[in-house]
Amino acid sequence: MTQPLGFYFDFSSPYGFLAAQRIDALAARHGRSVDWHPILLGVIFGITGQTPLIAQPLRGPYFRHDLLRLAREWQVPFVFPEHFPFHSVTASRAFYWLKDRSGEQAVALARAVLDAYWGQGRDVARPEQVAEIAGGLGVDREELKTALASPELKARLRQEVDDAVALGIFGSPTVTVDGEPFFGCDKFEQLERWLERGGW
Amino acid sequence: MTQPLGFYFDFSSPYGFLAAQRIDALAARHGRSVDWHPILLGVIFGITGQTPLIAQPLRGPYFRHDLLRLAREWQVPFVFPEHFPFHSVTASRAFYWLKDRSGEQAVALARAVLDAYWGQGRDVARPEQVAEIAGGLGVDREELKTALASPELKARLRQEVDDAVALGIFGSPTVTVDGEPFFGCDKFEQLERWLERGGW
Repeated sequence: MTQPLGFYFDFSSPYGFLAAQRIDALAARHGRSVDWHPILLGVIFGITGQTPLIAQPLRGPYFRHDLLRLAREWQVPFVFPEHFPFHSVTASRAFYWLKDRSGEQAVALARAVLDAYWGQGRDVARPEQVAEIAGGLGVDREELKTALASPELKARLRQEVDDAVALGIFGSPTVTVDGEPFFGCDKFEQLERWLERGGW
Repeated sequence: MTQPLGFYFDFSSPYGFLAAQRIDALAARHGRSVDWHPILLGVIFGITGQTPLIAQPLRGPYFRHDLLRLAREWQVPFVFPEHFPFHSVTASRAFYWLKDRSGEQAVALARAVLDAYWGQGRDVARPEQVAEIAGGLGVDREELKTALASPELKARLRQEVDDAVALGIFGSPTVTVDGEPFFGCDKFEQLERWLERGGW
């Protein structure tokens, strides 16, 4: 019985968006499913001392260029949304609330949020906006909006981020294979070889 | 007439060491030569706000593991030297001094310094130690040691680092192909596809 791949990403991370376009097919090629884990880089940067990549001197311009270059090679339509980055806490909370009800619907919501923001440049930071997207997937908008304001759901997301940090996760995307972490879109080829070999 | 690949690395960077084991063969497969450029990450970190990777919370343990994993896959014997990182300014100055006399000898010195430090765990920070390694390649030890103390050579290295920064170089290794930069060992596959395609 193989374990699912762990897929850790921030909705507001462009490399996370690109990885989301490939992760399910990559897992399927090796008979694996994917356990999606939205995380909050803002919280984790408080631990690592990092800052948003795109805003850094020298590194920002390089990675902005690299993103476009990688998207082109991966044939993923990609433009930087006008409002970047966005506050991904609401989408992340909605994801985990829905995951407790239906893992499939939660992944469908994650894809829809990523597509709305990265594909269409729509604002997806506010509860009404996330509820609107979830409503399109058959989720009860009002029930979700009520849940988004609850202390339980806020605590749930905090716990998920703490759990990721406890595993050593610090960036988006990170894929774990039976506990082995691979950070970055550039790791997808080494990750695939790892899956082919079944480890070392 | 194809341009040489630019290979930017810090002698004290473990990923730079790994890249140095592959860069010449990669270039040769595509009819290119390699122009080696030692840089000083300590100086560049002052601009980017970065700190040595291996010392960072969460990121340090991951990249330490990743280095060993990559070295194993690339079949490069690799252990972390006891004294890490080392002050790479002397080796870098020696490289550029020798480069003005013989590009081939300068690369031979770079390889010998990398092998002494990363392969054998030897201390290579001091002028006598670098001169000893250079002497083994037929370089006049005393002439090199005199040059290492000269203001001209210090200024030369500063200029080389400034020139790299002006090109947007911020990390080790970075390979440039006709001005297009690829940062990190994990980029070697995309870099190879780029060379195969001849650009976009």
